[in-house]
Amino acid sequence: MSCRGSRIAGYQSILGKGFDMYLQDPFDRESNPQGILNLGSSENKLCFDVLQERLTRRGMNCIAPHLLQYNNVQGLKSFREEIAKFLTEYASAPKPLNPEHIMVMNGCCSVFAALSTVLCDPGDGYLIPTPYFGGVNPDTWLYGKLRPVHVPLYSNISDGESRPFQLTVEKLENAMQRANEQGIRVRALILINPHNPLGDIYPAQLLKECLDFAHRYKLHVIVDEIYMLSVYDDTTFTSVLSFDHLPDPERTHVMWGFSKDFAMCGIRVGILHTKSQEVLKALNQLASFHGCPGPVQHVLSQLVGDREWLNNIFLPTNRRRLREAQRILVAGLTELEIPVLKNSAGLFVWADFRKFLKSQTFEAEIELWWKLLDEKIYISPGKAFDCYEPGWFRLVFSDSAEKIYLGIERLQKTLHGEDLHP
Amino acid sequence: MSCRGSRIAGYQSILGKGFDMYLQDPFDRESNPQGILNLGSSENKLCFDVLQERLTRRGMNCIAPHLLQYNNVQGLKSFREEIAKFLTEYASAPKPLNPEHIMVMNGCCSVFAALSTVLCDPGDGYLIPTPYFGGVNPDTWLYGKLRPVHVPLYSNISDGESRPFQLTVEKLENAMQRANEQGIRVRALILINPHNPLGDIYPAQLLKECLDFAHRYKLHVIVDEIYMLSVYDDTTFTSVLSFDHLPDPERTHVMWGFSKDFAMCGIRVGILHTKSQEVLKALNQLASFHGCPGPVQHVLSQLVGDREWLNNIFLPTNRRRLREAQRILVAGLTELEIPVLKNSAGLFVWADFRKFLKSQTFEAEIELWWKLLDEKIYISPGKAFDCYEPGWFRLVFSDSAEKIYLGIERLQKTLHGEDLHP
Repeated sequence: MSCRGSRIAGYQSILGKGFDMYLQDPFDRESNPQGILNLGSSENKLCFDVLQERLTRRGMNCIAPHLLQYNNVQGLKSFREEIAKFLTEYASAPKPLNPEHIMVMNGCCSVFAALSTVLCDPGDGYLIPTPYFGGVNPDTWLYGKLRPVHVPLYSNISDGESRPFQLTVEKLENAMQRANEQGIRVRALILINPHNPLGDIYPAQLLKECLDFAHRYKLHVIVDEIYMLSVYDDTTFTSVLSFDHLPDPERTHVMWGFSKDFAMCGIRVGILHTKSQEVLKALNQLASFHGCPGPVQHVLSQLVGDREWLNNIFLPTNRRRLREAQRILVAGLTELEIPVLKNSAGLFVWADFRKFLKSQTFEAEIELWWKLLDEKIYISPGKAFDCYEPGWFRLVFSDSAEKIYLGIERLQKTLHGEDLHP
Repeated sequence: MSCRGSRIAGYQSILGKGFDMYLQDPFDRESNPQGILNLGSSENKLCFDVLQERLTRRGMNCIAPHLLQYNNVQGLKSFREEIAKFLTEYASAPKPLNPEHIMVMNGCCSVFAALSTVLCDPGDGYLIPTPYFGGVNPDTWLYGKLRPVHVPLYSNISDGESRPFQLTVEKLENAMQRANEQGIRVRALILINPHNPLGDIYPAQLLKECLDFAHRYKLHVIVDEIYMLSVYDDTTFTSVLSFDHLPDPERTHVMWGFSKDFAMCGIRVGILHTKSQEVLKALNQLASFHGCPGPVQHVLSQLVGDREWLNNIFLPTNRRRLREAQRILVAGLTELEIPVLKNSAGLFVWADFRKFLKSQTFEAEIELWWKLLDEKIYISPGKAFDCYEPGWFRLVFSDSAEKIYLGIERLQKTLHGEDLHP
């Protein structure tokens, strides 16, 4: 194999390792009750019944010639039109979005990979506040060879701040300066909103300040809004698509997808909105590597176009179930004396396990993670999100109450059992 | 945008340009009878009725939780098992293929892109006999930055040869030597069998010699067998998977897909068979960028698993219709005094338009191509396949007789009309 192949094969991901272990021995109430319980993968398993009912209605398995033939690599025109209408409405765009600014790819991993490849040259850096969704690293590194430039955030609340892990423009400025000193050319800023793994939402004012900051430095901004509709409390989510005025519209790129908000990780459809013709031209060249089957685009067109089902069935049900599941997990963690960051969106909570570490190090964090895996519970350590503070874990709640209760039980056994503090 | 982005955006493809023009103004008997007739894209449009009947049967739109959730990125285990059985039977493997050696991706473009990225380093070369399927260039260049090292083949039959455009190991040796002299490190040999655009089939003996040659130079061999089941005459096709013994099993990689043999370019599913664990490990890292929806894998499992339908309905119908369509096109071309290379497989013929060129140059070839587009017929010029001899064109026949007749009519008008030789 090539050097590049070995580099790619050798890429280590904690999340990937945990998921692989889970796949080898997955919990199942009947067939494998001692198997690994997965509260680590950000998947919404709460809405299968609602989806199944809708996806198997008459007319959903429509097979037309154009769906089985080569088509526009940017995405079926009819699908992009539906997506444009859908995002205009649900992201509250001030004017109808143009379907020609929409790009369809097979998942947001692909959007990250292709977009970072065309926006940046190998070795370029992107600013990203930590902790952050661990998938961004392989997505931008494996094909793109980009380097993350961390903007470290901490749980302590400094002067003038109102919440833990708070992002400020000052912190972006500092990271930018450090990158300059290290000779890293920064080309982009990546923001995840609603945030993964923190589960909170960026205030509109902060978003604007970040866009202004990026404009000053001529940075591209990639905003990952994949949890846009998975908001389960009363906090207001502001999409970048809702702004009347963008400081740098040609360098502002927004991602969204079906995996999380539509509870279908296996459907592999990600969306990019960008006004840059140049970027679209380059992405269209890469599109054949990230194509999405015609029949799938057709089915999802029906789904997003059905406002009756969306507004009266799917979205309220999903929101209610997310809220209930979140409450069950948070209540359980509270009983185990595990503090949880205030969260409003996403499928997970960010929980403080610091008091259970043997020492305040990442070694101790990973040691605890292994101990939990030994007890057959898979959650995600902060290390997997490049968190700068050891002892934080992300726990996914979007699963049945039964599994959450069992998860709490297994946590209890590991954390408060006799073996922990010998 | 980055330098890399500009390089990608600037990539020029003749096939892409032709297809884009066609998409702007596609022929339709009712709505656009003066539109462009596409005999350029290698798509099989002859079997839609048979496919539609099978794809819309009860049980095909089955939605199960695991299909909508994250799964093994190498492909659903159940799908890989069906594919292993299918390829074992239809590629005549001497022993059952192992599903763990199968990789599922969203189309063969993706297989080329990911595989070339892990096998080779940027700037490395691969040997490839010309003419060859034009998509290989962007597939291996856009992400992988690989360079083709051509093995030029010509229509004249040299001493000891039996057919035009004949590949020999001596020609491979010569190309290898030239690459060495130019300082290009060659890492792979790409073979397309059945051949695109020639439409012929490699004899088993030649395949073996090529594999031995690659083994001597420690080259990887990528064999693209995407037209494996689109053989419409009595010539025997030999898959590399059928060999009892491979000189270098770890460096031999076979591709196949659903686009051509199953007449579904829009379904985006490509398959790789490789025994190299190292290569599979690297490809699995890239797999999230080339993923295929769970429900699509499920549907295709049903399709390839249904031997009754395959053997008694789909394959014989497809074969018969391909043969009929090929005869209609060849008869039409013969009337226009356009010689056609003997062909046995694929969806196209390789036709000799040399006598219609103003001069024996590629400029004249492209001039003729434009003239044909002006007459609203899109076929593919040899230049798009890096042919070394100007004046050859690929014409696709896998469409309705009506369109083929109309195509012949438009060719007649352009080639034998008053304007051609003023």
